[in-house]
Amino acid sequence: MKEEKSFVKEITPQAEDFSRWYIDVIRKAELMDYTPVRGCIVFKPDGYELWERIQAGLDRRFKETGHRNAYFPMLIPESFFQKEKEHVEGFNPELPWVTEAGGEKLEERLALRPTSETIIGHMYAQWIQSYRDLPVLINQWANVFRWEKRTLPFLRTSEFLWQEGHTAHATEEEAREETMRILELYRDFVETEMAIPLYTGQKTPSEKFAGAVDTYSIEAMMKDGKALQAGTSHYLGQNFAKGFEIKFLDRDNQLKYVHTTSWGVSTRLIGALIMVHGDDRGLALPPRLAPIQVIMIPVGPPKFRDKVMARFDPLFDALKAAGVRVKSDLREETPGWKFNEWEMRGVPIRLELGPRDVDSNQCVLARRDTGEKITVSLDEAVERVQALLEEIQRNMYEKAKAFRDANSHLDVDTLEKLKAHIARCEETGELTGFILAGWCGSAACEAKVKEQTKFTSRNIPFDPPERKHTCIHCGGEAKHTVWFARAY
Amino acid sequence: MKEEKSFVKEITPQAEDFSRWYIDVIRKAELMDYTPVRGCIVFKPDGYELWERIQAGLDRRFKETGHRNAYFPMLIPESFFQKEKEHVEGFNPELPWVTEAGGEKLEERLALRPTSETIIGHMYAQWIQSYRDLPVLINQWANVFRWEKRTLPFLRTSEFLWQEGHTAHATEEEAREETMRILELYRDFVETEMAIPLYTGQKTPSEKFAGAVDTYSIEAMMKDGKALQAGTSHYLGQNFAKGFEIKFLDRDNQLKYVHTTSWGVSTRLIGALIMVHGDDRGLALPPRLAPIQVIMIPVGPPKFRDKVMARFDPLFDALKAAGVRVKSDLREETPGWKFNEWEMRGVPIRLELGPRDVDSNQCVLARRDTGEKITVSLDEAVERVQALLEEIQRNMYEKAKAFRDANSHLDVDTLEKLKAHIARCEETGELTGFILAGWCGSAACEAKVKEQTKFTSRNIPFDPPERKHTCIHCGGEAKHTVWFARAY
Ligand SMILES: [Zn+2]
Ligand SMILES: [Zn+2]
Repeated sequence: MKEEKSFVKEITPQAEDFSRWYIDVIRKAELMDYTPVRGCIVFKPDGYELWERIQAGLDRRFKETGHRNAYFPMLIPESFFQKEKEHVEGFNPELPWVTEAGGEKLEERLALRPTSETIIGHMYAQWIQSYRDLPVLINQWANVFRWEKRTLPFLRTSEFLWQEGHTAHATEEEAREETMRILELYRDFVETEMAIPLYTGQKTPSEKFAGAVDTYSIEAMMKDGKALQAGTSHYLGQNFAKGFEIKFLDRDNQLKYVHTTSWGVSTRLIGALIMVHGDDRGLALPPRLAPIQVIMIPVGPPKFRDKVMARFDPLFDALKAAGVRVKSDLREETPGWKFNEWEMRGVPIRLELGPRDVDSNQCVLARRDTGEKITVSLDEAVERVQALLEEIQRNMYEKAKAFRDANSHLDVDTLEKLKAHIARCEETGELTGFILAGWCGSAACEAKVKEQTKFTSRNIPFDPPERKHTCIHCGGEAKHTVWFARAY
Repeated sequence: MKEEKSFVKEITPQAEDFSRWYIDVIRKAELMDYTPVRGCIVFKPDGYELWERIQAGLDRRFKETGHRNAYFPMLIPESFFQKEKEHVEGFNPELPWVTEAGGEKLEERLALRPTSETIIGHMYAQWIQSYRDLPVLINQWANVFRWEKRTLPFLRTSEFLWQEGHTAHATEEEAREETMRILELYRDFVETEMAIPLYTGQKTPSEKFAGAVDTYSIEAMMKDGKALQAGTSHYLGQNFAKGFEIKFLDRDNQLKYVHTTSWGVSTRLIGALIMVHGDDRGLALPPRLAPIQVIMIPVGPPKFRDKVMARFDPLFDALKAAGVRVKSDLREETPGWKFNEWEMRGVPIRLELGPRDVDSNQCVLARRDTGEKITVSLDEAVERVQALLEEIQRNMYEKAKAFRDANSHLDVDTLEKLKAHIARCEETGELTGFILAGWCGSAACEAKVKEQTKFTSRNIPFDPPERKHTCIHCGGEAKHTVWFARAY
């Protein structure tokens, strides 16, 4: 076990320092690298491939629900930001500006898009004339910029990748349906494919998107107990329609403003994936999202290699033919080194085949999620692998859900209790997690909680495990039951 | 035919004004729209979908040849451009600069990438230590910026979309092999999927990429006889390796500079597609690239609609099940209007089904490429459609090749003859096309030709139809046989 020990040493244990664990894992697994450009990272192939798989899963769902992709200019004239008051206040401090181009100073500064409601609103105003032009259902895959003070790879970078959907509808009802359809689409994708359990609900006004009427979110719990907002869907009402004069002639011959929505998820989903499933041995990827589902490694003395490979190669081909994303590692390293390496990279199943296995017509499957080793007959190896991938997917979701539920506190529902809870956690090393509490609806109460505990409202869940009746801060009547947590 | 006439009126005939035809088609087919941002366009869903299909075809080929995708920062520090002399001179005039961000003036200006050799070179220097780290085979799908004076949708815009491959190798031989592998990959994709015949060859030094040792290109002829460089593959030698100190310890224990390549195609391929296949009726899309391959339209009096739909729907399902990209148009417009509409949008096959067709157990297939109408039995409609799609793909390539060959002149190989050729074309309205001529290798000769005729060297074909022995300008001994043309 010597090899293993020195290996694990390179990754800081989660319990010792979660932030360092995170950085150690993403660098060792070669998901990203820092660059000389402030707050900008390189998405290295193994990191980018996770994004490609996220893209594929979402893009298919967007298209199945009638959306089409388009691409709008990245540069947005400064004047566009002025047209929606909350929007400009929300984004102005974070914008990078192009002020010179082609050897000349520009007459008007151009912002690097932080999001595209404004430029898209401007275009929609020209494309939409009649109710026959509605709904407009467009999505864009793009890079976006937010010059934030503190950055963290995948979670908060100056440039990141995302998709942003922008739709326009004839009625509020249709626009609200779209907002909810997408929230559910996000929930389905993230829970089903990424095995990340979510709390879905509505953001409080202080946490909503700058310019939205209502913002809805999916919120996940990381292994340090902190929350991560994994996606948002906004009902924008007629705010941008009025700012950009997006009007249509309705069936009743009246000129009306459209109702718009916007929604997005970003490369921060990669961060969520890592922090929900990873452990002290490195990454752990759910089978449906994993670029490599099975890593095949021949074991045993080199003199038996030919004998092993005679069964190894056909098994590789059979798995591949069955649609399993399989890779073989034939490098000249010890099996132990390879085991560590692929565990660290999060591959769900390791398949070992040695000379004695060949004699017994069997192989060994090692699960990344539980560490368990299972011996299976070579005759049924493909079916067993397929079944095991399903089982691992299910188990990873259940494990993450059990963890989240264990750290979701329903009895910490006053500021006093929350402070005591935090103090106790600091003492015992337990995680502060999520707390469910009532809220009277006053922004001041929310602000006080944040100020005193760094807990922010995550969302108002559609279906809370229980209803709270008094405000966490003022003790007045609760209008809403809210999840609070410290958040990324 | 009244309807048809007024429809065609909206598209300027190619022979009248090719540039106006181009703009008319791309706007009427809703491929793009202008924006208030100088030289930037919107890729509307029908235009972006062409790009998505180009991406899919290329991405599959890149991956099959061992390349992986990654993503590097869009912003490049000014100092990076200084590290390769030709590179900075080539791109500096076209760069947009970010000078302010997050409310502060930046200490160093950041360029919006025109291409990423510099930032990628900087990263490769850190990733590559040993021969074991080589080759590095990375591709990036990204937006890029070149603030050009005159812009033209898809062909020359301030922001455009592209892929850029960047590879590093231990030896010159391997890097040159890669350069050629990719050029061949591009040729295969563009000829096979886009049905665009190409001249492949090497760029002359004056036309090569800023910083490359050798640049190779695929060149296509548009329907106005002008050339369009459809893709380039560069052998960069050790230029960027030296600029960015990308060194590796070789097997012989010597520290050596790597040899790099870069290569790219962009959204200008959409422009090529339009200008190679389009006609006075609008777009014409080759079946393999067409987002919609078959448009199904029910015809005949409304009172028979139920009878027609009873056969129409199963046929639609059968085509879809067979993997054909089929769409039905059931809108309340006249069949004639729909015929025009889908012809203009370039759909390869229109399938008509009316009550009399149902009685005769048949349907009508109309070809976009030839206008021909074919009556086929409903029993074999799926097979006939599939075969016809193949036939149209083949025919579109052959037609484009015949056009190109007819406008490739082998006998115009002196400056005098070229001037006479141009004068004659101006008189008769013929296209100036491509000419094949000898070249002594002097940049001055090339420049003179350009100055006096606006013909530029396109490339030095690997396999010219004949060898030329005297220079087009000075009459001296020709070192190369070169395609010249006016170009986009
Ligand atoms: Zn309160
Ligand atoms: Zn000469």
